[in-house]
Amino acid sequence: MLFAVKMDVDLPVDMDPVVKADTLAREKAYSQKLQQGGEWAHLWRCVGQYSNLSVFDVADNERLHEILWNLPLFPYMTIEVTPLAQHPSDIALLGS
Amino acid sequence: MLFAVKMDVDLPVDMDPVVKADTLAREKAYSQKLQQGGEWAHLWRCVGQYSNLSVFDVADNERLHEILWNLPLFPYMTIEVTPLAQHPSDIALLGS
Amino acid sequence: MLFAVKMDVDLPVDMDPVVKADTLAREKAYSQKLQQGGEWAHLWRCVGQYSNLSVFDVADNERLHEILWNLPLFPYMTIEVTPLAQHPSDIALLGS
Amino acid sequence: MLFAVKMDVDLPVDMDPVVKADTLAREKAYSQKLQQGGEWAHLWRCVGQYSNLSVFDVADNERLHEILWNLPLFPYMTIEVTPLAQHPSDIALLGS
Amino acid sequence: MLFAVKMDVDLPVDMDPVVKADTLAREKAYSQKLQQGGEWAHLWRCVGQYSNLSVFDVADNERLHEILWNLPLFPYMTIEVTPLAQHPSDIALLGS
Amino acid sequence: MLFAVKMDVDLPVDMDPVVKADTLAREKAYSQKLQQGGEWAHLWRCVGQYSNLSVFDVADNERLHEILWNLPLFPYMTIEVTPLAQHPSDIALLGS
Amino acid sequence: MLFAVKMDVDLPVDMDPVVKADTLAREKAYSQKLQQGGEWAHLWRCVGQYSNLSVFDVADNERLHEILWNLPLFPYMTIEVTPLAQHPSDIALLGS
Amino acid sequence: MLFAVKMDVDLPVDMDPVVKADTLAREKAYSQKLQQGGEWAHLWRCVGQYSNLSVFDVADNERLHEILWNLPLFPYMTIEVTPLAQHPSDIALLGS
Amino acid sequence: MLFAVKMDVDLPVDMDPVVKADTLAREKAYSQKLQQGGEWAHLWRCVGQYSNLSVFDVADNERLHEILWNLPLFPYMTIEVTPLAQHPSDIALLGS
Amino acid sequence: MLFAVKMDVDLPVDMDPVVKADTLAREKAYSQKLQQGGEWAHLWRCVGQYSNLSVFDVADNERLHEILWNLPLFPYMTIEVTPLAQHPSDIALLGS
Repeated sequence: MLFAVKMDVDLPVDMDPVVKADTLAREKAYSQKLQQGGEWAHLWRCVGQYSNLSVFDVADNERLHEILWNLPLFPYMTIEVTPLAQHPSDIALLGS
Repeated sequence: MLFAVKMDVDLPVDMDPVVKADTLAREKAYSQKLQQGGEWAHLWRCVGQYSNLSVFDVADNERLHEILWNLPLFPYMTIEVTPLAQHPSDIALLGS
Repeated sequence: MLFAVKMDVDLPVDMDPVVKADTLAREKAYSQKLQQGGEWAHLWRCVGQYSNLSVFDVADNERLHEILWNLPLFPYMTIEVTPLAQHPSDIALLGS
Repeated sequence: MLFAVKMDVDLPVDMDPVVKADTLAREKAYSQKLQQGGEWAHLWRCVGQYSNLSVFDVADNERLHEILWNLPLFPYMTIEVTPLAQHPSDIALLGS
Repeated sequence: MLFAVKMDVDLPVDMDPVVKADTLAREKAYSQKLQQGGEWAHLWRCVGQYSNLSVFDVADNERLHEILWNLPLFPYMTIEVTPLAQHPSDIALLGS
Repeated sequence: MLFAVKMDVDLPVDMDPVVKADTLAREKAYSQKLQQGGEWAHLWRCVGQYSNLSVFDVADNERLHEILWNLPLFPYMTIEVTPLAQHPSDIALLGS
Repeated sequence: MLFAVKMDVDLPVDMDPVVKADTLAREKAYSQKLQQGGEWAHLWRCVGQYSNLSVFDVADNERLHEILWNLPLFPYMTIEVTPLAQHPSDIALLGS
Repeated sequence: MLFAVKMDVDLPVDMDPVVKADTLAREKAYSQKLQQGGEWAHLWRCVGQYSNLSVFDVADNERLHEILWNLPLFPYMTIEVTPLAQHPSDIALLGS
Repeated sequence: MLFAVKMDVDLPVDMDPVVKADTLAREKAYSQKLQQGGEWAHLWRCVGQYSNLSVFDVADNERLHEILWNLPLFPYMTIEVTPLAQHPSDIALLGS
Repeated sequence: MLFAVKMDVDLPVDMDPVVKADTLAREKAYSQKLQQGGEWAHLWRCVGQYSNLSVFDVADNERLHEILWNLPLFPYMTIEVTPLAQHPSDIALLGS
């Protein structure tokens, strides 16, 4: 099941540099593991923003929440979740 | 170059059924041709909305505008364009 | 899987009374069938609004979209979908 | 009487861990007691958000305010209250 | 139980004058009957707006919805409902 | 002359408890004096919010500003002022 | 007593030209009479908008509402009313 | 003096094709004359929108309003005006 | 040339009292000098708000920006600028 | 390729003066280098705001993001990016 997720990150400007570096490193590792696992299907940077647009391919709502809730950057994020379905014009349907 | 595009469609409820059917058919054909060409890279339906979230892979701004401006449903659409860039955590970078 | 769905209905004031009555009857039958089937788990009227707050219990996004897209009142609706997950304080967890 | 209540929680990132743990524990106990009492009828987590959607079944406005005002997390919450009424299509009406 | 209700009226500029006059007359009679009955406790005009701010004193949510849903002007209204409770500084509490 | 005033209070979570208690006490006394004087005609708590909806009956704009500006909680408030006039359906007009 | 009033005019593009011309003429005459009487103290056009920013000097709320409600263009307007008071830095205070 | 002006065009979908073609032709001629005159300094299309971002170089507010008010498409436009000043980092200042 | 300027002031509640008093004094002096010079043509307090609505009569955009940018309270302000032009119904036109 | 970029700067009022001066100096140098290089094609100050409206002429999205992400003031900015295309009425087209 697919979900589009917009994540806007807002780090305090006076964040402890050590904490910041550690959090960002854990976030990167966490995300790359999920990308390699296939659940984090797409990850794009929104130009000019500390934001990303992602698409997740997960079993269900519970799993998506588990993934997002445990993002190291979660406490600094504003997240918008849009459930996706197959579009009737999707050429993948032509094949089936 | 990638752009995320959200398209919300708002058809008049009293739209002439013939015009509506024709417009929707032309929209589908137009979109599928671009999908097959690779420029319309992703097309998802937003659940519960007459909206889609798409990702376009185009040469430049001019081409994206040309594509969107000529959508048969353009006059009935509210469109939001978000330029995308590669995310630093994108695992595709690990390969390169 | 649970989804909260807010539906705001905006019928044209000059809607043909016959079309209106027919659409509302079909909407009621459609909704009651889904309630009896268990997928439309909760349906409440928002006081003072031509709106409802519903909770759907469905297999996945595709099914939810199919249900909402085919609501007879869909063309007159503004719909907001919120995917739900189990809350960590939910007493149902105490039992399990 | 039913009310839908959306609660968005925004904890300071530099909140004292001890205070935080204590507040969350009190919040959980407070909520579970009300769930067991039946007044907190439904409690769902909104996917990807530090938010919940709840439905309260209370005697009146005064009681609902008392419950919400005394939530341990109240000072960190943005709350939206929607009074609910029975929907005319509610199948419970078929029985009566 | 008290509710504050803001009602914004938006009549079509091309509304049939006869229908308009009849609707307004029925609205006035409907409102005055409820005022005399005490349920429509306060009714003020918002300066410069085709809006009113009202306070209803009703048994419960169901009754409030019934009143609002049956306002002759309901189809032309945008309504905002705010449940009210007694304020801890209310001098009425000094007496009790 | 009547004004509806919505006051949303947002106290810093780390506010000095002594300062907080003193400010709240002064606010209560200030408000009750104005209620007894008749200028603060109505004061209701908005359910689930640290907000009140009030109606002031004052000589003019200057007096209303003076009252609001000097609220002990003013620095912590977001205030919305709506001038009110007599509604043409107000049954008080029937008497006159 | 002073009030700032922002008026945004939105005339239907298919408005009967005769009705439009008559309404605009009546609006101009109505406004100029009030300007000459001193109640409509300031009237400025907002650049690039079919809007004006005005300042009224009136006896009270009732009078302001009467003036605005009877504007020939009222049915086509969105109006925002801001009650004004004397600013503590107003040099007029230096004289007094 | 410079002003940035965002113009969003919203043509009725059922606009008479002849009127539409004529209005668009007059708009183009009007704009190109002002571009040639230098007052319409920049004119860009916003990708995916029936909108433009323009920069005007005009004598004063009155002139800008005159230009915008007389745009053939004005009745179909939502316009946002932002007065501009020289930026302190503008390299043109290095020369002077 | 006239500009309407809305200034909303938001002082930190924990602002150093000495700094606050000094800033406010400089702001008052700064404003009164400009009022006496005629550029700050109108200055009104918005009732119930730490805001003012002002009208400036200045040579051009550059001058207005210079005035606003150098307001002692500028760092604590949210400012909205609306360029004004003469209204076609302005009775001053009757004289000319 | 052209992009319009609105940058709103919000510096903490208690920012270390030395850090502030250094950041602003680096921002100015950074911007002027890009202006001289031609990528930062236009830079205007929005009157009364700590904001600028800029137009960038860059190779692609990646380059624009790189420029914006590395702005010394980026952590203090809210940025809005609007991709631009040539307007059909642009007189530059007349020449070609």
